[in-house]
Amino acid sequence: MSVKSYIESNKDRFLEELFSLIRIPSISAKHENKPDMLTCAQRWTEVLLSSGADKAEVMPTKGNPVVYAEKMVSPNAPTVLVYAHYDVMPAEPLELWKSEPFEPVIRDGRIWARGADDDKGQGMIQVKGFETAIKEGLLQCNVKFIFEGEEEIGSPSLEDFCREHKELLKADVILVSDTSMVSAETPSLTTGLRGLAYWEIEVTGPNRDLHSGHFGGAVANPINVLCKLMADITDVDGRITIPGFYDDVEDVSSAEREMIAQIPFDEEKYKKAIGVDSLFGEKGYSTLERNSCRPSFDICGIWGGYTGEGSKTVLPSKAYAKVSTRLVPHQDHAKISQMFEEYITRVTPPYVKVKVTPSHGGQGYVCPIDLPAYQAAEKAVGIAFGKKPLAVRRGGSIPIISTFEQVLGIKTVLMGFGLEQNAIHSPNESQELDIFFKGIESVAEFYRLYK
Amino acid sequence: MSVKSYIESNKDRFLEELFSLIRIPSISAKHENKPDMLTCAQRWTEVLLSSGADKAEVMPTKGNPVVYAEKMVSPNAPTVLVYAHYDVMPAEPLELWKSEPFEPVIRDGRIWARGADDDKGQGMIQVKGFETAIKEGLLQCNVKFIFEGEEEIGSPSLEDFCREHKELLKADVILVSDTSMVSAETPSLTTGLRGLAYWEIEVTGPNRDLHSGHFGGAVANPINVLCKLMADITDVDGRITIPGFYDDVEDVSSAEREMIAQIPFDEEKYKKAIGVDSLFGEKGYSTLERNSCRPSFDICGIWGGYTGEGSKTVLPSKAYAKVSTRLVPHQDHAKISQMFEEYITRVTPPYVKVKVTPSHGGQGYVCPIDLPAYQAAEKAVGIAFGKKPLAVRRGGSIPIISTFEQVLGIKTVLMGFGLEQNAIHSPNESQELDIFFKGIESVAEFYRLYK
Repeated sequence: MSVKSYIESNKDRFLEELFSLIRIPSISAKHENKPDMLTCAQRWTEVLLSSGADKAEVMPTKGNPVVYAEKMVSPNAPTVLVYAHYDVMPAEPLELWKSEPFEPVIRDGRIWARGADDDKGQGMIQVKGFETAIKEGLLQCNVKFIFEGEEEIGSPSLEDFCREHKELLKADVILVSDTSMVSAETPSLTTGLRGLAYWEIEVTGPNRDLHSGHFGGAVANPINVLCKLMADITDVDGRITIPGFYDDVEDVSSAEREMIAQIPFDEEKYKKAIGVDSLFGEKGYSTLERNSCRPSFDICGIWGGYTGEGSKTVLPSKAYAKVSTRLVPHQDHAKISQMFEEYITRVTPPYVKVKVTPSHGGQGYVCPIDLPAYQAAEKAVGIAFGKKPLAVRRGGSIPIISTFEQVLGIKTVLMGFGLEQNAIHSPNESQELDIFFKGIESVAEFYRLYK
Repeated sequence: MSVKSYIESNKDRFLEELFSLIRIPSISAKHENKPDMLTCAQRWTEVLLSSGADKAEVMPTKGNPVVYAEKMVSPNAPTVLVYAHYDVMPAEPLELWKSEPFEPVIRDGRIWARGADDDKGQGMIQVKGFETAIKEGLLQCNVKFIFEGEEEIGSPSLEDFCREHKELLKADVILVSDTSMVSAETPSLTTGLRGLAYWEIEVTGPNRDLHSGHFGGAVANPINVLCKLMADITDVDGRITIPGFYDDVEDVSSAEREMIAQIPFDEEKYKKAIGVDSLFGEKGYSTLERNSCRPSFDICGIWGGYTGEGSKTVLPSKAYAKVSTRLVPHQDHAKISQMFEEYITRVTPPYVKVKVTPSHGGQGYVCPIDLPAYQAAEKAVGIAFGKKPLAVRRGGSIPIISTFEQVLGIKTVLMGFGLEQNAIHSPNESQELDIFFKGIESVAEFYRLYK
C-alpha cells in the first residue's frame, strides 16, 4: 500500500482519535481544568502506543505532566525527538463560537474545535505520520515523543524537565508541528520565531472607589494613569519608546528582506480577512516584516472600574492590564522583562502605586536551512503539497524551542501545518481536513527521507 | 415636647423605617432590579403617609415611577417641594463589603448599607424632619414631595414628568437632601454643583481576536489605540485638551477663591483618608477648587481582551471605556457631549473604528445665598449643629436641579447631610447616626423658620 492509500483507508479512525483528545478541555491557564490535564496526557499515551510506539508514559513535572513515548529502531540510526503540546488556550469569549469548542464537528471540509489546529491537530499529524511510516515500512530512525501540558502558559516546567532527563531526550533533531504555513497554495517551513515577554500591571490610586463628583479633578484616577503609561510605550511611528529596547535587535539583512518580499501577500485580502480598513505598524517595514522580524507591543487585556450595564460615576481604586512584547533574535527576554519593569516603575507618577508582575517569556529562534532534517522536511512537504515549501520567519513564539537548544543542545525543525484562517487562540478555531491529511503524508515522507 | 426630645423618643422607629427601604435593592442601573423599583416607591408612600402626608401616590413616568406626596396647610402659605431619590448605585465590587449591602447594620455608631446616605438616608432625614415639625406644631408651609427612581442613571424621565405636572409641582422653593457637608465639625450648605457628561466608547480593531504573535506589530490593537485616545484627553498640567472645552467655563472670582481658602482642609488627612501619597489635578488650582469649581475628566470603567486568570497572548477585537467629565457653571452638557463625540471621531486613527454613545448629562448649578429658604436652612442647621454652616460649592452633580430651574422655574436649596467618609457609590457606604438625627432636627427647625 502507498502512503497516500494507507492514509485514505484510515481517515475516519485518525479523526476519531483526534476528537477523543479534543473532547478533553485541557486548558492550562485555568485552575478548574487541572484534572483534565492528566486525563489528556493519559489519552495521548494510549494513542501513541496504538500508533506504533514501543512504550509511552505520563511523567511528572513540577506542573502538568509530560507525555513521553519512543520507538527505537537501531542504536546506530539517528534519533528524532517530536515535540507537541496537549494543552490549549481558554475558549473565551464562548458566545462567539458557532459550535461547542470542546465538541469537534466537521463542517465545510474543516474540523471546528479548540485545539483542532493548536496543537492537538498538529500533534496528531505527527503521530499519524509516524504510524503511516511504520506501517509502510519507511521508518529508518529512532523516534521519541515529548508532549507537554503547559505551552500556552509559557512552559514553566519543561526546562527543568529537560535538565533532569537529558539522557532520555537525547536526539539529533527536534521536530515540531506548532507553526503555520503561508497558505494552502504556498506551503512553507518556519525558520524563525519571535520571542516573548509578558507582564501584568496593577495601578492603585485611592484605597477605595471614590465618587467622581466629589473627588474627580483632585485625585488621580488609576485608569487615566494606566492609559497614559500604556500610550507612552509606543510612538506615532509604531516604535517602542522604552530606552534600550532596540539595543540587541537583529538587523534584518537585505537578503532576508528580499526573500520576505517574495512571499505571496495580498494586502487587500489580508485586511479584508481581519476586517480592518488600514494597517498600522512600525514605520519603514512591510507588514510581513513587522509581524515576523520586528518586535511588537500589545495590550492583551485591560480592566478596571465599573464595566457593568448602565453608567456609574466612579473614580476607581484600581486598574489592570496584561501586556506583552514579541521579541526578535538577540533580544533576551529576561533582560527585556527587567528593563520593562524598571521603566514602568520609573515613569509611574507619585500619585499612584504600580506593581509589575512578569509572567512567562521566551527567546526568539532561527533554524539553519542546511540542517539535514530541514532538507528532509523540505522535500517531504514538497512531495505531499506538490510544491517546494518557502523558508519563512513567523511572528509567533514557542519559547521552548530556544530552551531545547540551550539545555539539550539540539536544533529544531519547525514542520507546521497551520493556516492563518484556522483562527488559533480565537473563537471558532478550525483545521482544514485536506491539510490535515497532507500533513500526515508529509511526516510519513519525512521518515522515508531522514536516515 | 421639644424637637430634640420628639426625635429622641422616636429614634428606633425612624431607623426601622429607613431599614425597610434599604432592604429593597432599588438599583436603577440594573435591569434585573426593575421589580424592586416599584416595591421601593410603594414603600415610600406608606412611610410618607404615616409621617403626616395628606396623600401619597406612585405616579408613572416613561421609566421608573415617581413618588408624589403632599401636606397642604393653607393656600396662602408658601410651598416647599422636597426632592429625593429612591434608587441607588450598584453595590459592586461586592467582595469588598464588610456586611451585606442591602441588609443594614449598626456598627461603631453608623448605619452600614448601600443607600444609608445616598439617598435613602437623606430622604428619610427630610421625611422625619417633616413628621417632627407636624407633631411639634411647627409647620407653617405647604409641603410637597417628589422622590424619583432614576437619579443614579441621570434622571432620564423626570424632565418630561415635570413638564407634564407643572401645576402639581408648583412651589416656592425646592429642598433637596442629596449633598455633603464639609465635615461633622464644619456644617455647610451646598451653593453650587458641577454638571456632568458621560459616554461609552467602543473601539473595534480586527473582526475577531487575533494571535498576538502572528499579527502583533502589523495590525493595530484596539486597546493600545483606546489607551492613546484616553491619554491624549488630558495633559501634564491636568488640563483637558479637547479644543473649545474651556470656552464657556466660569472664571472663579477671587472672592470665591478666598472663601474656598477659608474652608478647613487638612491635605495630609485628606490624602491619608483615601490612601494616596500625593494629589494630582489642574495646575494653578487648590484641591478644593479642583473638585468643586473646575472641570474634570475620569475614566470610570475600561475593559477589553483577556482579563481572566493566567496569561493569554491575544490581539483583541474590541476595547471599551465608560468616561465622564464634570462640568462647571456656563458649560452646557449637550454642547460638551457633542464636542467630545466629534473630537473622538476626528482623532481616531483610520485603522480602527470608534463608536461614542452619550449617556446621561446635566448642567451645573449655583444657588443665591439671599434666598429666604436658604436663609431659613442656614439658621436651622446652625441650631441643630451649634455652628453657622458655610456656603460651599461641591463637585458632585445633581443634573435635575438645573432642570427644575429651567422647567419649573424654581430655585433649589441644597440642605444635605452627607459626609465624605460615608463612601457613597463605594463599598461600605455608611451614615453616622448622630448626623442622621441632627439632620432631622435641622429639617424640623427649617419648618419652624420658613413661612
